Amino acid sequence: MNQPLEQLRVLMKERSMDAYLIPSSDYHQSEYFDAHFETTRFLSHFSGEACTLVITPDQALLWTDGRFFVQAEEQMDTENFQLCRMGMEGVPTVEEYLAQALPEGGCLGFDGRIISIRYLHKLKEMLKGKNVRLAWGEDLVDQVWTDRPALKPQPAFVHELNYAGKSREEKLAELRAEMKKLGATAHILTSLDDEAWLFNIRGNDVPCTPLVFSYTVVTEEETHLFLYPEALTETVQKSLDESHVVLHDYSDIYDFLETLPRDAAVLVDEKRVNMALAGHLPESCRLISGDNPTTLAKAIKNDTEIKNLIHCHIKDGVAMVRFMRWLKSHIGKEPMTEISASDVLEQYRREQNENLGLSFSTIAGYGPHGAMMHYMAVPETDAELHPEGFLLVDSGGQYMDGTTDITRTFVLGPISQEQKQHFTAVARGMLNLANARFLEGCCGLNLDYLAREPMWELGIDYRCGTGHGVGYLLSVHEGPQSFRWKERPGEKLCPLVPGMVITDEPGIYLDYRYGIRTENELLCVRDEKNEYGQFLRFRNITYCPIDLDGIDTQYMSPREIRYLNDYHSMVYETLRDYLTPDEAEWLKEATRPVGLEK
Amino acid sequence: MNQPLEQLRVLMKERSMDAYLIPSSDYHQSEYFDAHFETTRFLSHFSGEACTLVITPDQALLWTDGRFFVQAEEQMDTENFQLCRMGMEGVPTVEEYLAQALPEGGCLGFDGRIISIRYLHKLKEMLKGKNVRLAWGEDLVDQVWTDRPALKPQPAFVHELNYAGKSREEKLAELRAEMKKLGATAHILTSLDDEAWLFNIRGNDVPCTPLVFSYTVVTEEETHLFLYPEALTETVQKSLDESHVVLHDYSDIYDFLETLPRDAAVLVDEKRVNMALAGHLPESCRLISGDNPTTLAKAIKNDTEIKNLIHCHIKDGVAMVRFMRWLKSHIGKEPMTEISASDVLEQYRREQNENLGLSFSTIAGYGPHGAMMHYMAVPETDAELHPEGFLLVDSGGQYMDGTTDITRTFVLGPISQEQKQHFTAVARGMLNLANARFLEGCCGLNLDYLAREPMWELGIDYRCGTGHGVGYLLSVHEGPQSFRWKERPGEKLCPLVPGMVITDEPGIYLDYRYGIRTENELLCVRDEKNEYGQFLRFRNITYCPIDLDGIDTQYMSPREIRYLNDYHSMVYETLRDYLTPDEAEWLKEATRPVGLEK
Repeated sequence: MNQPLEQLRVLMKERSMDAYLIPSSDYHQSEYFDAHFETTRFLSHFSGEACTLVITPDQALLWTDGRFFVQAEEQMDTENFQLCRMGMEGVPTVEEYLAQALPEGGCLGFDGRIISIRYLHKLKEMLKGKNVRLAWGEDLVDQVWTDRPALKPQPAFVHELNYAGKSREEKLAELRAEMKKLGATAHILTSLDDEAWLFNIRGNDVPCTPLVFSYTVVTEEETHLFLYPEALTETVQKSLDESHVVLHDYSDIYDFLETLPRDAAVLVDEKRVNMALAGHLPESCRLISGDNPTTLAKAIKNDTEIKNLIHCHIKDGVAMVRFMRWLKSHIGKEPMTEISASDVLEQYRREQNENLGLSFSTIAGYGPHGAMMHYMAVPETDAELHPEGFLLVDSGGQYMDGTTDITRTFVLGPISQEQKQHFTAVARGMLNLANARFLEGCCGLNLDYLAREPMWELGIDYRCGTGHGVGYLLSVHEGPQSFRWKERPGEKLCPLVPGMVITDEPGIYLDYRYGIRTENELLCVRDEKNEYGQFLRFRNITYCPIDLDGIDTQYMSPREIRYLNDYHSMVYETLRDYLTPDEAEWLKEATRPVGLEK
Repeated sequence: MNQPLEQLRVLMKERSMDAYLIPSSDYHQSEYFDAHFETTRFLSHFSGEACTLVITPDQALLWTDGRFFVQAEEQMDTENFQLCRMGMEGVPTVEEYLAQALPEGGCLGFDGRIISIRYLHKLKEMLKGKNVRLAWGEDLVDQVWTDRPALKPQPAFVHELNYAGKSREEKLAELRAEMKKLGATAHILTSLDDEAWLFNIRGNDVPCTPLVFSYTVVTEEETHLFLYPEALTETVQKSLDESHVVLHDYSDIYDFLETLPRDAAVLVDEKRVNMALAGHLPESCRLISGDNPTTLAKAIKNDTEIKNLIHCHIKDGVAMVRFMRWLKSHIGKEPMTEISASDVLEQYRREQNENLGLSFSTIAGYGPHGAMMHYMAVPETDAELHPEGFLLVDSGGQYMDGTTDITRTFVLGPISQEQKQHFTAVARGMLNLANARFLEGCCGLNLDYLAREPMWELGIDYRCGTGHGVGYLLSVHEGPQSFRWKERPGEKLCPLVPGMVITDEPGIYLDYRYGIRTENELLCVRDEKNEYGQFLRFRNITYCPIDLDGIDTQYMSPREIRYLNDYHSMVYETLRDYLTPDEAEWLKEATRPVGLEK
């Protein structure tokens, strides 16, 4: 019996709601968010970050994507919830389900603050003709969640120019120029990473992500920033005052929007701005739907950021190399578990200069746990590590000079020939994509096949994209660039631009057996320019060996072997001076050239 | 002095037109068309099939794409016309130019019958705010083209069920089902290949393409076909009568459209239907903009078509092998030119069973001519062939059982090491794409890089797509599938579907030096289906050796060498029984395995 679920149904009945919709989100459409917003976990017990619940009087459904199928099966309240595997044949989407389940003239409830404008349009489109009433004014989960964790806004801090590389004033001027191009007289910006980037401030309001709860409204002349008072240290206030930013309380945004000029042309990213905000605009305002201009600007790292970022990745690489050496030499000699190993890695990271903690909860999955793409060990699942099989470790750090994201799969002892073939295929995919050379204008969609090919050749797929953008002391996932092979409906393809950072992380995930992922971060850089155009390529900025105990060169082409050896030689040359002589010696062996005997 | 150009300017002046726009097109937005429609050639002397002219009182501009830059420079009236290289840096598009060149309140003239609805929208969008008048009622070129060739409609014929594989009634029923899904009560179909496919008729009204000048209107109950009386043989009339197709005269379409019900919901493909037609619909009609449902249906070949198509390609392969053997053994021993060699190839094709001629004018480009992607030798340019360098031959045939398109580049004698490297790169690109294995849902955009990679590695690009769909006794270019790396604005990406045929034709084009292209047709087929989904791959259906005199295996990976040898072995096994013993012996040598000595 799931008490909160039953209480929710009582509230629904009182309000004559036929269904209640609960996506995992906060008021900013953030990917990660405070425990306060973990409504889907509270109700279903599933902790994955991509989850949507639909509750009806007699059904409770949970949608999640391929990264989380196994985890959902393990964690969720399967007695009361039914798992809907997104993207699988015969599984309806949330909206298809609602369109079918809601009666003519029925009522759908949800909290409008966690639903984007775009999603509202989609819902309306799917439900059109059914005369369904949308009741979006109440957060019903709040009423049944008696011990809901409170929001605790933290002090913000200024990300100074030697880190940021571009001043707040310059960024605001560029934003206003983009607004002008689009004919906008005002712009509502509610994505926390865009706001932190725009104002060169950081905070601590979102787990593992140095963001500040905030809303922003930029007009032709004025800049309004809505913050919790707790965020406003004296330094932050002084800095923002100097830039003539008008400060408001976080919750005053709704009232403020009502005061916008009646003829305002308001640029909003309908994917990011919640529908409740839009509902507070004067009705005569014209909405201009478009991507936040800051999203692309933020993705293209400036020279200062790039210089810092490389330094930050070297530090992260040192921590990773120390961890790998410790792991490979201590396994089987002392007890260790997924969590204890993660703690060792975290310790090595925290010892690095200007580290601010992790950029996301470390994924350390041993054996079958590695097959859950976004597994997070908790005491009940924490597996003991033995000198055999694979340990997949996906982790990253936040530093004053950047954010990192790296995955390595470590061979802890004997593995089968099939495991070697799979490990080698994943490395080949990563390396082949990292070594692409392409004309300006290419998008992730054009190149994704390079990473996926070795797996598809084996009749295997990883059910997710191949890579995502990475923030700079910001979110570990950021757009607009990505490596994927399927278009996202309604999203424009984003060409790769010099200065963009993107992960390259193919994998093989065999449910209940093992998982392998190898992830580097790539920096897009200029190559030759000639009569055919500007060629681009990637520079590897992740510095850590790929475990050679998993590599079998019989599965590699001569070119792939060269890619591997070149990468390893670069890792060694980059890190050697930052390591103790013993560590450097170990790294030299871990990055030795392979496949040359033939 | 260009007399017609000056006369056109006089007419423009009389009508107060500030610019006159002339795209290369017929009334059906066909790619190839009768000499009657060669207005751009008449005025500019450039014969390429992708051309747009803009005439102003003091400028005459000619836009064409990368396939035609060199050819345009050679052919066009450069004294009076200025070449605008589409896609090159700093070159405005036609619409950008018009937006800048037309004065506020000015007038733009064009013939509305050769402008699509979509293009009209684009023009209006680009010119909005300038208050420009569009004068689309007159074909001014017609008034200055005194010896314009008349249209000569030819008799049509029925493409019987043993060829077509699906009856007209079945196709119409499927079309109506698609119309119903889209909420359409009527559908205007004006793309000639879609119409020929839908009615299982063929004709001879377009060069190298067995099409019939026609318009079609399908309503929920009725089927109306508008034809020239010359097309209607007794057999065709009887066959169409049996399917209850209502026949009209070709030119009656405009009046007919005015009689459609005022509340009709009319499905039109705005890319294909001309704006003059749309202008004749009752104003109260609702336009439903969408792809012609027949375009996708036609692209997915049925089992009968596939069986026939393979047989047709075997015949075409026999002709190609005979030609290649003749060419390689006679070069340097007897005089030959681009045209005389093309004639030999055409003769071999015509000797094949059920051949109906060529599917396009053969491109036979020797040396520097090969660098012009769509070069067509004419007596003034016809180059003599010598036993050295490359001869690029892109050709195809029309057969009762299919349409073919193949390019081979032949090594006529000594070539440089660089030429070998380039020839091998092109073959590698073709083979790598042909051997792709991919999940259902993949589009050409996902795979194009495979063909392009060996060229991009060398810092070279071919400035066009990698491949296109091919008709079945229809147009040699058909959609919706394609291999390209750039999206076409406003076009949806088209997943590859089993049954689709698509060309795979990378190349290297070095202006004033040489051109290399190797083109196979690929049939998309099912591969393994498992928990990850349905895997697809391609089957090569072009049977002709790649000239091994151009191949240097030092540039190939072991896998690429295997692809080449496997392809060659398949060509030999497929064709041997259709050849004389001498020819088979020659083919065996031409398809011998390479690269094994190492």
